[in-house]
Amino acid sequence: MAADHASRRAALRATLTDRGLDALLVTDLLNIRYLTGFTGSNAALLVTTDDDADESRTVVCTDGRYVTQIAEQVPDLRAVVARAAAAHLVESAGPQTTAWGFESHVVTVDEHARWSGLGSGVTFTAAPGLVEQLRTVKDEHEIGLLRAACTAADRALADLVAAGGLRPGRTEKEVGRDLESRMLDHGADGISFETIVAAGANSAIPHHRPTSTVLASGDFVKLDFGAQVGGYHSDMTRTYVLGRAADWQRELYDLVLRAQQAGCEALAPGVDCAAVDAVSRSVITDAGYGELFLHGLGHGVGLEIHEAPGIGAAATGTLVAGATVTVEPGVYFSGRGGVRIEDTLVVREQAPELLTLTDKTLTVV
Amino acid sequence: MAADHASRRAALRATLTDRGLDALLVTDLLNIRYLTGFTGSNAALLVTTDDDADESRTVVCTDGRYVTQIAEQVPDLRAVVARAAAAHLVESAGPQTTAWGFESHVVTVDEHARWSGLGSGVTFTAAPGLVEQLRTVKDEHEIGLLRAACTAADRALADLVAAGGLRPGRTEKEVGRDLESRMLDHGADGISFETIVAAGANSAIPHHRPTSTVLASGDFVKLDFGAQVGGYHSDMTRTYVLGRAADWQRELYDLVLRAQQAGCEALAPGVDCAAVDAVSRSVITDAGYGELFLHGLGHGVGLEIHEAPGIGAAATGTLVAGATVTVEPGVYFSGRGGVRIEDTLVVREQAPELLTLTDKTLTVV
Repeated sequence: MAADHASRRAALRATLTDRGLDALLVTDLLNIRYLTGFTGSNAALLVTTDDDADESRTVVCTDGRYVTQIAEQVPDLRAVVARAAAAHLVESAGPQTTAWGFESHVVTVDEHARWSGLGSGVTFTAAPGLVEQLRTVKDEHEIGLLRAACTAADRALADLVAAGGLRPGRTEKEVGRDLESRMLDHGADGISFETIVAAGANSAIPHHRPTSTVLASGDFVKLDFGAQVGGYHSDMTRTYVLGRAADWQRELYDLVLRAQQAGCEALAPGVDCAAVDAVSRSVITDAGYGELFLHGLGHGVGLEIHEAPGIGAAATGTLVAGATVTVEPGVYFSGRGGVRIEDTLVVREQAPELLTLTDKTLTVV
Repeated sequence: MAADHASRRAALRATLTDRGLDALLVTDLLNIRYLTGFTGSNAALLVTTDDDADESRTVVCTDGRYVTQIAEQVPDLRAVVARAAAAHLVESAGPQTTAWGFESHVVTVDEHARWSGLGSGVTFTAAPGLVEQLRTVKDEHEIGLLRAACTAADRALADLVAAGGLRPGRTEKEVGRDLESRMLDHGADGISFETIVAAGANSAIPHHRPTSTVLASGDFVKLDFGAQVGGYHSDMTRTYVLGRAADWQRELYDLVLRAQQAGCEALAPGVDCAAVDAVSRSVITDAGYGELFLHGLGHGVGLEIHEAPGIGAAATGTLVAGATVTVEPGVYFSGRGGVRIEDTLVVREQAPELLTLTDKTLTVV
């Protein structure tokens, strides 16, 4: 199934028309990728509202390095070549008055001043986050890529565990590199972010970077990692126990797992993001550990590893069908150890769809 | 040898005083790292010109996640905690009039508008690139880190070749992963950028991404890669021949090597960057291949893999002692193969210092 960039641009045009804009000058590279498929490192895109069926007024601009690539990746739009891509589109607008929105949340003060000094008839209106808002609802093409990314992560972890990769004597760094290498073996284009491997007391640090700490029997080992496929990111956390689990470890694990399951079950269209956080958090708070759950419950995931919607106590959004989000409660006993369990899921009209399929039963390796 | 962040801030103060500014609000994270040593993902720094010997008026701000880290990394400055770091510093300025420069080349239109709406007495003046300008001259601490990064890359490549890692039948992707893994083995904190491995006809593509293309006897194999140590990047390209070198390959290699050596020898304080490009390029142009040298000669390298100064035909800068730059001419026969040879060097008063030490004699593996 090919990506339907034209439909995404049509949805953007509807948003622009609602705001009385003649066009949006898109300069964020991920937004350009979303709207066109272009993956180069320099581009600007002008999406006009009054375009014809062939979109002949919508134009994408990149520099000479990408002439071949843009013809291949964006066959359905007119492409022009200039090094200063956005400024070139502004200059090409000519003297007649036209109202363009621009991505004021990513455009720098210097770049904006440059455009204003070019003497075109364009009036610029801050229009932050319009494409990001569209991106919160994934189409089936995007969900397919997210599923492939999650599968690569699932398989890599299964291989790691089956090969005895989580064993006393290895360092956090060795485990991280091993896991990353296995994701590439399973078709990942790259990793989503630097893999977190946190053993023993380090597992109580929410975002610990792998060190030379050696895994030891009795440790919690927390793995937070993801694969990237076609630009889309997976995100999953699992926590294991090495050797033999103590009672406090079993109790802590069970608590976090119940909180995680409650959060997953609360995902549905129309539900406030803050309410999802509250449902999961209350499980931990009721057990007396609310102050040890140090972060929000989750976040959207897609072309970025962290994107809208945020799912936390202070979140203001509401879930919609097609949003892909993480649910990742954690409880951290400083100096002793912590547990986090995280899945990536799609919000669906019926039940949420789980994309990360690795078993969550407490596993002692 | 520890990094002397206080001296870097003193140099910045001199620049600010020259411009009549009371302070610089630094929001670029690499610039904050350069000036303080802080490596977190959220921070703002206010460097005031009229500070006392204890720098008690200079302040760094980050959010709650980094309270411990900032105390460890920046023991010599006052730290305050707020999620919206820069806005907090603006609000804290109070109502008296004060002239702050800001990094208009990185600050977004939205962020700037937010500051202006906070009702403080701060007047904001665009002051782009001031810290980047200081960063072009590396101190010996920085050169030590660059040297370590270059050494990790040298050793990884030596290991790869010694282990027979460049052999017919392997894919570009396999070679790239192998080389990256070996850099980590030799102490790299990470890689500088996605390793370029380009075999056969692919070697004629200047910035080819590794594919499943299989290395074959008679191929050029071009490797462009780097290691990261302490935030500093190395950058090196070597081109090998597999099996047996044809005459055209020997001639092409020899030409590019002569151009590269001419470029390296031209590096000296006071020389125009464009002149260095011209010296190297003329070797290739005189041989009749000027149109096949598709890019600039080199670039600065440090906390960023590409930073000032640019070394190309249109460059406007002049070299200074302590600048670290690459010299990387290339000639590309489309559909057939290409050669690029690149080193990282320090511009010194006497002769330039080579940091990437891997031999450049044509090597047939």
